[in-house]
Amino acid sequence: MIDIGDIQLAAQRIAPYVHRTPVMTSRTLNEMFGAELFFKCENLQKVGAFKARGAVNAVMKLDEQQLRAGVITHSSGNHAQALAYAAGLRGISCTIVMPHTAPAVKVAAVRGYGAEITFCEPTQESRIRTMEEIAQRTGAHIIPPYDDDRIMAGQGTVGLELCEQVEGLDLVMAPVGGGGLMGGFATAVRSLQPEARIVGAEPSIAADARESLLTGVLQPPTDRLTIADGLRTGLSDRTFEQLRSTGVEIETATEDSIRRGTLLVMSRLKLVIEPSAGVTIGVLLEQPELARGRRIGIVLCGGNVDLGSLIFG
Amino acid sequence: MIDIGDIQLAAQRIAPYVHRTPVMTSRTLNEMFGAELFFKCENLQKVGAFKARGAVNAVMKLDEQQLRAGVITHSSGNHAQALAYAAGLRGISCTIVMPHTAPAVKVAAVRGYGAEITFCEPTQESRIRTMEEIAQRTGAHIIPPYDDDRIMAGQGTVGLELCEQVEGLDLVMAPVGGGGLMGGFATAVRSLQPEARIVGAEPSIAADARESLLTGVLQPPTDRLTIADGLRTGLSDRTFEQLRSTGVEIETATEDSIRRGTLLVMSRLKLVIEPSAGVTIGVLLEQPELARGRRIGIVLCGGNVDLGSLIFG
Repeated sequence: MIDIGDIQLAAQRIAPYVHRTPVMTSRTLNEMFGAELFFKCENLQKVGAFKARGAVNAVMKLDEQQLRAGVITHSSGNHAQALAYAAGLRGISCTIVMPHTAPAVKVAAVRGYGAEITFCEPTQESRIRTMEEIAQRTGAHIIPPYDDDRIMAGQGTVGLELCEQVEGLDLVMAPVGGGGLMGGFATAVRSLQPEARIVGAEPSIAADARESLLTGVLQPPTDRLTIADGLRTGLSDRTFEQLRSTGVEIETATEDSIRRGTLLVMSRLKLVIEPSAGVTIGVLLEQPELARGRRIGIVLCGGNVDLGSLIFG
Repeated sequence: MIDIGDIQLAAQRIAPYVHRTPVMTSRTLNEMFGAELFFKCENLQKVGAFKARGAVNAVMKLDEQQLRAGVITHSSGNHAQALAYAAGLRGISCTIVMPHTAPAVKVAAVRGYGAEITFCEPTQESRIRTMEEIAQRTGAHIIPPYDDDRIMAGQGTVGLELCEQVEGLDLVMAPVGGGGLMGGFATAVRSLQPEARIVGAEPSIAADARESLLTGVLQPPTDRLTIADGLRTGLSDRTFEQLRSTGVEIETATEDSIRRGTLLVMSRLKLVIEPSAGVTIGVLLEQPELARGRRIGIVLCGGNVDLGSLIFG
């Protein structure tokens, strides 16, 4: 379990290397929901997502011996870029295990940050086996995407900043995938603005975190392919406990609501966000009574989306 | 002709009603161009475009009699929303003449700001005739989209702010349509950072401003349908003179370069921009030597684009 002290230390550690992202508002969205919405813009973070925070925190905590051996992870998403970025800051070697089916743009982005890529089969089993074989052989230190206290503490700095930037929040919202963001975020908010309700947003077709919290038993992720592709992973024991102990509730949004929420943010705030970041607005579109009359902090978790194919066909 | 004094007065007049928009940067774009790029984010301006500045300046200069009669313009673009917004600030009546073919989303946006819409035939002739008939009958004061000193002075505050926010610019760039933005912008920059080169960006299939400045004779707009739909209008005598006297050069970008430039800003800066705002980057993609080694201020003029049809089909 991490606490606010871990998050405050992480904030000091990562401050020189990540952005203190702005909080944006929209008069039109406020009027639409009858609420005051404050958007924490992690799409404007280094590497285009909050993941830079956790990865930098983890890498900055490595000792000399670990630095020499370098770091490794498996990811085809934002964590891959984040770890490559963090490793580059310290000039250490970084290996990313990726399925050979990963989009070329993601491969290029990771290489652009100076990391090595090892391709594997597109299965969870192959990703983990490949990563562990390399780690064993090279001594590289594994930095997982969310099941790690250093990662959670780093992501928690999103909540620390939001609570400093906006006072008197009634409700805060962030998407929930593996729970690394929400674990840290909820810990910060529960400590700094203890009255705020904390609601995680999940696709209704992949609502394993909701089910886990309702039943008290950790549920495996579904294999349903939500467009919020960053949220397909399930909680770990570690993040599950962190969410439970901080009183996180989960609400869901359909795929259509996620699309509409994503589009609404893009068209009104003029910010590019990935569908995983639109799930919170999707929840509010389905349950407007959650919002009405409240001051709400919402984490826009990232902006890495393949616009080329989406926009100009 | 306007001068820096007009722009400074406009800045004071509009300050309570428009955003001092942020300047954003991207390490990746800087590396790609071997330059330092500073993006002035008018897509984050009120109504989603710089047009709010000129319209507010014009409306705030009206006298009591003009205020009672209200204002009118013809536009289906950002000027329509901007004037509706400005009129709403003073609680005066506002009529927008729009072709009946205007997209529903634009009609709704103007109505959302409280303006009345009168529909006309989709020709320039019908727009002007309809507007003038109403103005004659009601006494409403006409506020044109660019051929107006109050409008140019208001748009010029973009340049004033940019020069305050970024020192030592070698080059500044903005798109050129009717010349209202560029007329004011160039006037501010020429006064505050006189060494800076000022380059307007125009679609190569609608390069009437370039032709006008090269030949010294005002050319009519083409009827080619560039995707940079905000730039289809031609200069007026007034804006042409303002561009000439401030030493504006014009460079062009093909439709493909405009698309790529738009996409590049959206994917790297995570900002939604309209294609008219991507033309400057399109120019740099075609002429990278313009950028290399320089400090460049670039106006992202607006972010009003129909994402719904573009993105999720």
